[in-house]
Amino acid sequence: MYGYAMNKDDLRARLRRIEGQVRGLQRMIDEDQYCIDILTQLNSATAALRAVGMGLLDDHVRHCVAESIERGDGEAKIEELMAAVGRFAAK
Amino acid sequence: MYGYAMNKDDLRARLRRIEGQVRGLQRMIDEDQYCIDILTQLNSATAALRAVGMGLLDDHVRHCVAESIERGDGEAKIEELMAAVGRFAAK
Amino acid sequence: MYGYAMNKDDLRARLRRIEGQVRGLQRMIDEDQYCIDILTQLNSATAALRAVGMGLLDDHVRHCVAESIERGDGEAKIEELMAAVGRFAAK
Amino acid sequence: MYGYAMNKDDLRARLRRIEGQVRGLQRMIDEDQYCIDILTQLNSATAALRAVGMGLLDDHVRHCVAESIERGDGEAKIEELMAAVGRFAAK
Repeated sequence: MYGYAMNKDDLRARLRRIEGQVRGLQRMIDEDQYCIDILTQLNSATAALRAVGMGLLDDHVRHCVAESIERGDGEAKIEELMAAVGRFAAK
Repeated sequence: MYGYAMNKDDLRARLRRIEGQVRGLQRMIDEDQYCIDILTQLNSATAALRAVGMGLLDDHVRHCVAESIERGDGEAKIEELMAAVGRFAAK
Repeated sequence: MYGYAMNKDDLRARLRRIEGQVRGLQRMIDEDQYCIDILTQLNSATAALRAVGMGLLDDHVRHCVAESIERGDGEAKIEELMAAVGRFAAK
Repeated sequence: MYGYAMNKDDLRARLRRIEGQVRGLQRMIDEDQYCIDILTQLNSATAALRAVGMGLLDDHVRHCVAESIERGDGEAKIEELMAAVGRFAAK
């Protein structure tokens, strides 16, 4: 069980809302809504997904990474973390 | 009816796939999968959403914006477009 | 002479300030300043560069792109513009 | 003295190159070069700055953060790190 278990309900609730936003985008396209309005909604879904990503990274550092450093065995976890931060920041 | 009507089916298909990816993320959390793997999946959903955003912007420029410029009435549309590009690029 | 000629002085002044910020970053490293403070300064230089990029895009659309659309010859310019927006937004 | 001391020369060399790129951007504007070409050069300077930022974050985690976790005192450093990652990833 990983670190984010502590706020698993929160992550799930956020992802359910994002799923609803993505369904909303499909509806906006069905209804021929204005491109710029659809884009605004899409930016909002992207920002919500990235907030979930920050939450995952945060829990990962506080648990997996911190615990492996405490065990004197942090090298590989830090390597993996920074690669993940790099991919996340590059978007 | 707006410009993206020409590839509405494509946009809808992409959004349905993204909806599936977001449901996949909820399942990964239910199954306590590894944070870094969830983050990889999340980056992929974000990239797919942004590709849809680029598609919307592209159609918007080729239709709404180009047509208003051809009518000699492009000022407000260009203003609105560049504000949308700014928000999209800022993420 | 391109569109940004109208605010060339502004672009130059912004770039001179950014050049100063980049020199400031080298000084912060020489002085062994705290990583997080250097990163804050670096984010500020990046944001300033991207603001210049938005200014260039904005002038490009208002002049080069709008003029070629008015001449009934916008296709290639729009293609090139959207590729540039895509690279800029991807960062 | 902070963690990035180990590759201070590398960071300095990269920043000197970025300073040269920013001066190059001013020259491109003086010479009325094409907007899209200037934007390409600007994207390259931004990417180089962000690579320096990733280097700073990497060294910070491997030294400051890891050492404070090893001392059993990582909480505040992790808090500060994740706030910095969030600002860096938000761009």
